[in-house]
Amino acid sequence: MNAQTPVFELRDEDELSLDLIEAQYALRESRDQKNAKSVLVLVSGIELAGKGEAVKQLREWLDPRYLRVKADAPQRLSSDQAFWQSYTRFIPAEGQIVVMFGNWYSDLLATAMQDPKAFKDSTFDQYVQKMRDFENDLRQNHVHVIKVWFDLSWKSLQKRLDQVDPSEQHWHKLHGLDWRNKKQYDTLQSYSQRFTDDWFIIDGEDEKRRDQCFAQYILQTLQALPEHPTQVEQTWQQASIPKELLVPDQNVLEKEQYKDQLNELTRKVAEAMRCDKRNVIIAFEGMDAAGKGGAIKRIVKKLDPREYEIHTIAAPERYELRRPYLWRFWNRLNDSGKITIFDRTWYGRVLVERIEGFASTVAWQRAYDEINRFEQNLTDCQTVIVKIWLAISKDEQARRFKEREQTLHKRFKITEEDWRNRDKWDQYLEAAADMFEQTDTANAPWHVIATDDKYTARIEVLKAILKQLNVD
Amino acid sequence: MNAQTPVFELRDEDELSLDLIEAQYALRESRDQKNAKSVLVLVSGIELAGKGEAVKQLREWLDPRYLRVKADAPQRLSSDQAFWQSYTRFIPAEGQIVVMFGNWYSDLLATAMQDPKAFKDSTFDQYVQKMRDFENDLRQNHVHVIKVWFDLSWKSLQKRLDQVDPSEQHWHKLHGLDWRNKKQYDTLQSYSQRFTDDWFIIDGEDEKRRDQCFAQYILQTLQALPEHPTQVEQTWQQASIPKELLVPDQNVLEKEQYKDQLNELTRKVAEAMRCDKRNVIIAFEGMDAAGKGGAIKRIVKKLDPREYEIHTIAAPERYELRRPYLWRFWNRLNDSGKITIFDRTWYGRVLVERIEGFASTVAWQRAYDEINRFEQNLTDCQTVIVKIWLAISKDEQARRFKEREQTLHKRFKITEEDWRNRDKWDQYLEAAADMFEQTDTANAPWHVIATDDKYTARIEVLKAILKQLNVD
Repeated sequence: MNAQTPVFELRDEDELSLDLIEAQYALRESRDQKNAKSVLVLVSGIELAGKGEAVKQLREWLDPRYLRVKADAPQRLSSDQAFWQSYTRFIPAEGQIVVMFGNWYSDLLATAMQDPKAFKDSTFDQYVQKMRDFENDLRQNHVHVIKVWFDLSWKSLQKRLDQVDPSEQHWHKLHGLDWRNKKQYDTLQSYSQRFTDDWFIIDGEDEKRRDQCFAQYILQTLQALPEHPTQVEQTWQQASIPKELLVPDQNVLEKEQYKDQLNELTRKVAEAMRCDKRNVIIAFEGMDAAGKGGAIKRIVKKLDPREYEIHTIAAPERYELRRPYLWRFWNRLNDSGKITIFDRTWYGRVLVERIEGFASTVAWQRAYDEINRFEQNLTDCQTVIVKIWLAISKDEQARRFKEREQTLHKRFKITEEDWRNRDKWDQYLEAAADMFEQTDTANAPWHVIATDDKYTARIEVLKAILKQLNVD
Repeated sequence: MNAQTPVFELRDEDELSLDLIEAQYALRESRDQKNAKSVLVLVSGIELAGKGEAVKQLREWLDPRYLRVKADAPQRLSSDQAFWQSYTRFIPAEGQIVVMFGNWYSDLLATAMQDPKAFKDSTFDQYVQKMRDFENDLRQNHVHVIKVWFDLSWKSLQKRLDQVDPSEQHWHKLHGLDWRNKKQYDTLQSYSQRFTDDWFIIDGEDEKRRDQCFAQYILQTLQALPEHPTQVEQTWQQASIPKELLVPDQNVLEKEQYKDQLNELTRKVAEAMRCDKRNVIIAFEGMDAAGKGGAIKRIVKKLDPREYEIHTIAAPERYELRRPYLWRFWNRLNDSGKITIFDRTWYGRVLVERIEGFASTVAWQRAYDEINRFEQNLTDCQTVIVKIWLAISKDEQARRFKEREQTLHKRFKITEEDWRNRDKWDQYLEAAADMFEQTDTANAPWHVIATDDKYTARIEVLKAILKQLNVD
């Protein structure tokens, strides 16, 4: 048994059930509260070790209305999807418990076991590290992840296989694993050694103890959920504001020249995105009225709407606020196709949410690394991310605001809030500066386009996309 | 041009935009209000007729934050999924506008065009009828569906193909259709004749008029959204209450006999569901404390959790209330695998929602047909639905309620609300009787299991499943 695994004594089942239900209700009551939490239980292990039975028993002891068991057969890791992509829809909301039977580890195992000789240990270990980082980010965002591995000795496994009903044998042979094959069993066990040291290990030998261990571990988890972190570790070093943000370019592109360039570049951009084998994500941030909408219009000019999706990001809804802040972006990516454009993005966490105090200091300070990992996971899987910041001068913004106010059908674009945001101009510049310093990564660099000239901005946006796609 | 198609005059674009935005905001303001609505726009038509451009232009004129364009390439209709299944996730919530570029009609066309000789006209027409019924049900549930077909003559299509950029030609040849092939064009047009008579037809010839027609039609729709229907057409004929509901069976199964039968039947049920090529949905309804949970436990006894999903249905959340009441069931089906068990179901509409007044009279009276169509769509696509009603006597319920209250860890199962529901015992019987009369269909009949004996109930449930699966 694993060194970390606490030993639980058998308890009276009714009392255990009562405690579990009370803990479950307390979790549910936490919704929308200061220390709201959810719990995600990843379950994996040796076939016939009894994980299915333990989960069924847990369902008996808990209130099943607020427990979701998501159990899929493992799928091989895909080369163009991050390992979490097919699971994020089932990440629990505040107050919920989700048990994931199929999870990123079972996918990793299925992939590695397919051809263990070709699958390098170092690749395996890299995946495990990424998965742990992802789980840790979930925990920081109040989804408490625990992992439970059900173990079973070779001898016991064979004995249980002998007793299995013929119709079940078919099931247990699924997914290309032959549990009668000692070599395969050993390979799987040696893989499990590589990642289960932060798992709670349950010995599947004793059925009664097995179910209780599982339930008691979950109870212990529910009763000792950590409070949301508030401690900021060190003084924040404000990055200096890039010069171009303070004094945007004042050159003006002539209309004729603009039209010629636009025509050529829109064609090139459409062709480049269409022909690239990778997925393309274009992420826009920038000052209000800096021209994001106009730039997006030109990007898609020569594309058919079936080729892309545009997500214009408004304030999150309540059910979105009950999940990690990246959740609504994960889902939008899952629902989109090859080309996805975001008008405002996950960077809201370190911009508006930082400035308005919607995210705590510790939360926005942590978000840079979380975002970097999120983007790295995507770019690791055949995805190009083009991040564009559109900057204008404060005077130019005032000019555009007033123009909007004077144009009837543009009035909806300008509200009291925009003027209030404008009062925080310097704070936005500071937040942007920090964002560039922390998230201008090699795999997903920022393209800062700072100009008061709309034509120039649009042309530069198109050039930035081509550059990121490595097209001349 | 289609007879139904109104003729729109060209308007000042800024004014049109202003009107559109105001109508869009009014729609948004309707959320959670008495006459809340959403709008779903299905767009299809001849390639290069300009539907893409018209949608892009609409995006310019509206506030893009509250418009979602869902545009997928067509997929062929699947034999084991209802035609709406891949789209229901994108059905708009109250206050939203969704434009579906890929939709069930484009899938139908893609399927028929694949081999028009093998695809019978009558099959085509049946699909169209089912689709119209589905749309009508959406409309009744406050999702206002409109359909827009972009047409283009053969001559103009060829001229536009001549002018297309080479990189775009690749795109336009996708999905197996060759727009240079006159015969194929004619076949498509003859198909379109079969279903577009309730569509708004836009002639793609004149680009400016085309975009304005589209936008003005949407504006007209937004400005004249029908109020929620309240008029009940006729006096409701209350069905008579089946005798077994009034006097459930009082026979008692001996424990030994029960155990033997249970062992055999759980094995048989597991095997039958596993081997059946169809999807299996098991839907439980019944009086409180009638033993739904216990019966479900026995159904899955010899299954692995990766083989099924259980959905225990609680009251809907606010974001679910903003959609048609079937929405949360559509989504749960999409996320589940081969075997799906519902502990409480969509029949809540005609049970608790009817009795508590959460659904209006006209809404629950209409729901029977909606539910029948929903189930028919599923059983048409390789799905078996086993509907089970568990009935006990009123005395037996009192006994079980008290037992629950006296058992610490079962207390969560019994609340004030359960006692209040009990006061409405007769109303529930009446609602159940109506439900049987209206929804006991050949493709998805009800299995009424009325007994005060838990053992008998569990055995009968297993037998009902076998019967519905045609297993002896």
